[in-house]
Amino acid sequence: MDLQSILSGITNTNGKFAAQAQERLDNLTKPQGSLGRLEEFAKQLVAISENTMPDLDKKVVFTFAGDHGVAEEGVSAFPKEVTPQMVLNFIHGGAGINALAGHAGADVVVVDIGVDYDFGGLKKDGFVSKKIISGTKNMRRGPAMTREEAEQCILVGIELANEYAKKGYKIFGTGDMGIANTTPSSAITNVMTGKSVEDITGRGTGINDDAWKNKVAVIKDSIKVNNPDTSDPIDVLAKLGGAEIAGIAGLIIGAAANKVPVVVDGFISTAGALIAYLIEPKTRDYMFAAHMSQEIGHKSILEKIGLRPILDLDMRLGEGTGAALAMLVIESGLKIYKEMATFAEAAVAEKSN
Amino acid sequence: MDLQSILSGITNTNGKFAAQAQERLDNLTKPQGSLGRLEEFAKQLVAISENTMPDLDKKVVFTFAGDHGVAEEGVSAFPKEVTPQMVLNFIHGGAGINALAGHAGADVVVVDIGVDYDFGGLKKDGFVSKKIISGTKNMRRGPAMTREEAEQCILVGIELANEYAKKGYKIFGTGDMGIANTTPSSAITNVMTGKSVEDITGRGTGINDDAWKNKVAVIKDSIKVNNPDTSDPIDVLAKLGGAEIAGIAGLIIGAAANKVPVVVDGFISTAGALIAYLIEPKTRDYMFAAHMSQEIGHKSILEKIGLRPILDLDMRLGEGTGAALAMLVIESGLKIYKEMATFAEAAVAEKSN
Repeated sequence: MDLQSILSGITNTNGKFAAQAQERLDNLTKPQGSLGRLEEFAKQLVAISENTMPDLDKKVVFTFAGDHGVAEEGVSAFPKEVTPQMVLNFIHGGAGINALAGHAGADVVVVDIGVDYDFGGLKKDGFVSKKIISGTKNMRRGPAMTREEAEQCILVGIELANEYAKKGYKIFGTGDMGIANTTPSSAITNVMTGKSVEDITGRGTGINDDAWKNKVAVIKDSIKVNNPDTSDPIDVLAKLGGAEIAGIAGLIIGAAANKVPVVVDGFISTAGALIAYLIEPKTRDYMFAAHMSQEIGHKSILEKIGLRPILDLDMRLGEGTGAALAMLVIESGLKIYKEMATFAEAAVAEKSN
Repeated sequence: MDLQSILSGITNTNGKFAAQAQERLDNLTKPQGSLGRLEEFAKQLVAISENTMPDLDKKVVFTFAGDHGVAEEGVSAFPKEVTPQMVLNFIHGGAGINALAGHAGADVVVVDIGVDYDFGGLKKDGFVSKKIISGTKNMRRGPAMTREEAEQCILVGIELANEYAKKGYKIFGTGDMGIANTTPSSAITNVMTGKSVEDITGRGTGINDDAWKNKVAVIKDSIKVNNPDTSDPIDVLAKLGGAEIAGIAGLIIGAAANKVPVVVDGFISTAGALIAYLIEPKTRDYMFAAHMSQEIGHKSILEKIGLRPILDLDMRLGEGTGAALAMLVIESGLKIYKEMATFAEAAVAEKSN
């Protein structure tokens, strides 16, 4: 599979379908536009799927897991062992993403793309082994990944998108697990938005003031040591990223190539979405921004891509939890679009002035 | 049934239950607080129900319908006939509230509390005839209702709360239908918040500039003619309100009396919630504010009560549509609270710094 040929097949969504959806929305028994963003969601789903009566009967959230060499710099409140422990928690159904995906009627697929732990040929429903690396290298000392590794991780995401589109899934969600992964996400945000490291570095899982100051210093050092080429998103991704961030970028590219809507979770996922967007801006048409994370760098990336978040609930867990919950809201737009009666059908008088 | 005795039975929610819920939340496999408001929702549901493992298996949205004499002043974009037409649309399942309540797994109960139309003994599932008046009087010329009528409408709401609590419903939503009902809602907002009429009067179903100026003038005249006693919420409700606003206030009082959470929809519903809150401030503990409406007066009432909206999706339809959608989000808080594993159960390491 060749990344360039996949990218060249991505198109903007079809305006004719959006216009048809708008016409139907304007004839439903409500003041025009009064269901606000729910109407936009319906229109975008129609435009993406090129189907005036789309459905979302099969949903899936992909939780990409990877470790980070930079964890050894003390940037996280949790020890690195938590990454594989949480992967097992996902598989056993005990994590936040399991509860919220269940609520949304979505399957969870946990992808080991870069965990520094040997799961030993583990075979479980909802677990996919696609390990490209056993954790990134410590980016304070040099590149987190090679360019080839970053590209391989992107291809993992694209392959999953192809596979699950073929299986009939109608909407994808992104998610992440990786102790220390707000650190590379903040580094990417800094170099791609130009916002200061202090302004886009948050508390992650909950570090104290001293640990936060150290995290800022680690990010600054990492950028200095690696000096990434900001005109080359894959160079930035390789040097300052992570396997799960690259996998998420690939999933989004693959979603766009397959004309499948993709719900982008919080800070780490949106860092992946930014890489996808900078590689191919047309991917934006296929994205929904699930929510506004409490991680302070998130807002800057959403603005850079030009996405407005759907929910704002002070969440900062990752895993795809925001994406799962937002799927329910996006689906509500489709429900009103498909199920409401028109003025004529319901014999309701229309606007008079 | 005596309003005073019902009010005297309302208590604040139980802090001991909230503390027990917090303890469980803090032991779940996530950084503490990282599920943000979802955790608050779970805690509030536990505190309201006084049950550490509550459920929301039975949900209902009450859509109170009433007409408004002030419609003859040209304050709405739609003719008055639309109120009964939409009631029939609700009953036939073609409206926004039907689609969204269906999505949330909630029943819809349409309450004719003040529609100026004879439904002729209509018997249908989900339709309740509790007509107290056939529309309010034109409040530009005098009181919209008598004090007795307003109190009877409140009692209708309380009786419904009692009945549906007894039937085993675990969460209520409020909704409204009534052509011209943003006009009384803005009048109530003005006298109760002190914000200028211009600042809290919106476009309702979509009026143009001239119609908006007229609406502002009508509201100012109505307040002048009626000179309500702002220290007496029932006087304000009677003179400037509507039957459906009073019914919603009653439902909320009844929810609090029965220790049932109530999701308050948009502008009209929140005007009803403000009346309930001013009659008995403890009712606030039982309220969830569904969303931030595009009707510009909504924010001021939410602030006055001290409620933070859950969703912000540019909606302005009413009917209970925001309440239905918010129920799904509130329920997501309960799902994580009940279904997630603790650190000990999942053998995940806890925070180290």
